[in-house]
Amino acid sequence: MNLRHHGDREATPGLVDLAVNVHPAPMPPWLREAIASSVDDLARYPDPTPAEAALAAHHHRGRSDVLATSGAAEAFTLIARLRPWRRPVVVHPQFTEPDVALASAGRAPEHVILDGGFTLDPAAVPDDADLVVIGNPTNPTGVRHPAAAIRSLTRDGRLVVVDEAFNDDGTESLAGELVAGLLVVRSLTKLWAIAGLRAGYVLGEPTTIAELRDLQPPWSVSTPAAAAMIACTTDEAVTDAKARHVDVEQWREHLERGLDAAGIEHVPSTAPFVLARPGAGVHASLRAAGFAVRRCDTFPGLDDSWIRIAVRPPEVSTKLLEALSARP
Amino acid sequence: MNLRHHGDREATPGLVDLAVNVHPAPMPPWLREAIASSVDDLARYPDPTPAEAALAAHHHRGRSDVLATSGAAEAFTLIARLRPWRRPVVVHPQFTEPDVALASAGRAPEHVILDGGFTLDPAAVPDDADLVVIGNPTNPTGVRHPAAAIRSLTRDGRLVVVDEAFNDDGTESLAGELVAGLLVVRSLTKLWAIAGLRAGYVLGEPTTIAELRDLQPPWSVSTPAAAAMIACTTDEAVTDAKARHVDVEQWREHLERGLDAAGIEHVPSTAPFVLARPGAGVHASLRAAGFAVRRCDTFPGLDDSWIRIAVRPPEVSTKLLEALSARP
Repeated sequence: MNLRHHGDREATPGLVDLAVNVHPAPMPPWLREAIASSVDDLARYPDPTPAEAALAAHHHRGRSDVLATSGAAEAFTLIARLRPWRRPVVVHPQFTEPDVALASAGRAPEHVILDGGFTLDPAAVPDDADLVVIGNPTNPTGVRHPAAAIRSLTRDGRLVVVDEAFNDDGTESLAGELVAGLLVVRSLTKLWAIAGLRAGYVLGEPTTIAELRDLQPPWSVSTPAAAAMIACTTDEAVTDAKARHVDVEQWREHLERGLDAAGIEHVPSTAPFVLARPGAGVHASLRAAGFAVRRCDTFPGLDDSWIRIAVRPPEVSTKLLEALSARP
Repeated sequence: MNLRHHGDREATPGLVDLAVNVHPAPMPPWLREAIASSVDDLARYPDPTPAEAALAAHHHRGRSDVLATSGAAEAFTLIARLRPWRRPVVVHPQFTEPDVALASAGRAPEHVILDGGFTLDPAAVPDDADLVVIGNPTNPTGVRHPAAAIRSLTRDGRLVVVDEAFNDDGTESLAGELVAGLLVVRSLTKLWAIAGLRAGYVLGEPTTIAELRDLQPPWSVSTPAAAAMIACTTDEAVTDAKARHVDVEQWREHLERGLDAAGIEHVPSTAPFVLARPGAGVHASLRAAGFAVRRCDTFPGLDDSWIRIAVRPPEVSTKLLEALSARP
């Protein structure tokens, strides 16, 4: 199983991209302007301090609760190396980079595979796990666990890491709470369509954040990424985020209704993608028909009968649904 | 000794900055244009492949000899974690980030301190060192070691890492040579005044480069950084690099003549900075007079009698020289 596989490898030229979970609208003008303006300030070494202060204020957190990172991917690398984890656990199916980062740090994790509806059963996590990584909402299932269930995973001698890269509306988010033994990883990549910029951050207790900062190479967050972080915390950004979220909800409803109509099994989603189970071979037949969806045989707990479909505007989803229905 | 101290912390507002070794002219228009254009392409995840191909061609190396990194700082982090180094050695005085990266990986290095003129004595490196890190030209001494002396450090069971972040003209560079057991780390930050962008790369044997790539978080090099890498390998860039280098040589000659005239001990430099020894207390008195130079008590092998002075146009250096001469 290639845990390093990601959807961007599937969105090859000529195919309609439903493999990458980046918002289909371009970044808003105010974000474009902030990033473009930062080009005038590239001679200086980057300083993440103002960006971290803006993110802290945005989440009503203390200034020392925030570490800006070069995308969520860097955050997982730092967390993997934070301690000599004895029994790290990743709750799957889930984004596989935490797994890769842990293995790369010599701490290959155990997998807790959620069954049935892919909802979190806190009892499935081993008592002596000292690191637990979970996504909320989860990539690729789209399932959103109750914040209380995740909070209940915390205990002495354990670090719980929640990947909230796809939590765009704050529902069941733990970003605004200082919880002992909990880290929240966030990303600006998906909602704002700036995957090329590498802008993420971690929220947590000041002592843990300071330890992560200690492991981070200097100047890891570029000046354009820091500028984007500040821009994405303004009132205008909050308003636009809501609008983007409403769009995604409507588009997803259209897609899920279409899957229902076609009789295709799928997991009720709260994310900008839908996990569906049209059966083995469909991933390839969709590619032949001009559509890239995310293969799921590289996610622990899934197999090639599943595909992950990025939520797109109805005109795009409709074409995909037609291709799905046209299958022999 | 705070090995994490860097000049950018000293260039505080209101002071004339002679602490940061970034070229004082802004980036050229063709580079600005390449970076600004990349903002249109931020929705996609970054792909370093074309940048690595361009860098490989630029150095007449094979495609698999190059790893693009998020600045040289990331390269040192990856190298520190590449193997369980038994006896890592850093040749000092030298840029301290390799030290920090090794310590952070649990492999705090030994220091080989060069004496006298700070020129490399290959015999000073312990025979059983399995990692040797050296700068060429060296920050902060400005000394350029013969490529042959560095090549002579290589042997079975040892990796030699040359930091060529300040090798702008190719003299004594090993970037164009495939040498067994040797890595060359390069940076685009200083010459092109894009420290805020995080653009560096490593050249080496394909097997070692592949191992480093394995340790690198995905999408580590941003789309704007990759665009800058491509832009900096064009013929126009090569021509402009030569012009920048000639400027620096003339400016440095002016600074060194002024230091001579003021009777201030200094090390003959081949880099865009000069290591001088005006005596203890001068760093502070220069700050009081409005000039930030790099303190040197954080470099192993130096002490507070030394300062590192960034090479600037004559009108700036002249003012610094006046301040130095005005000391009691």
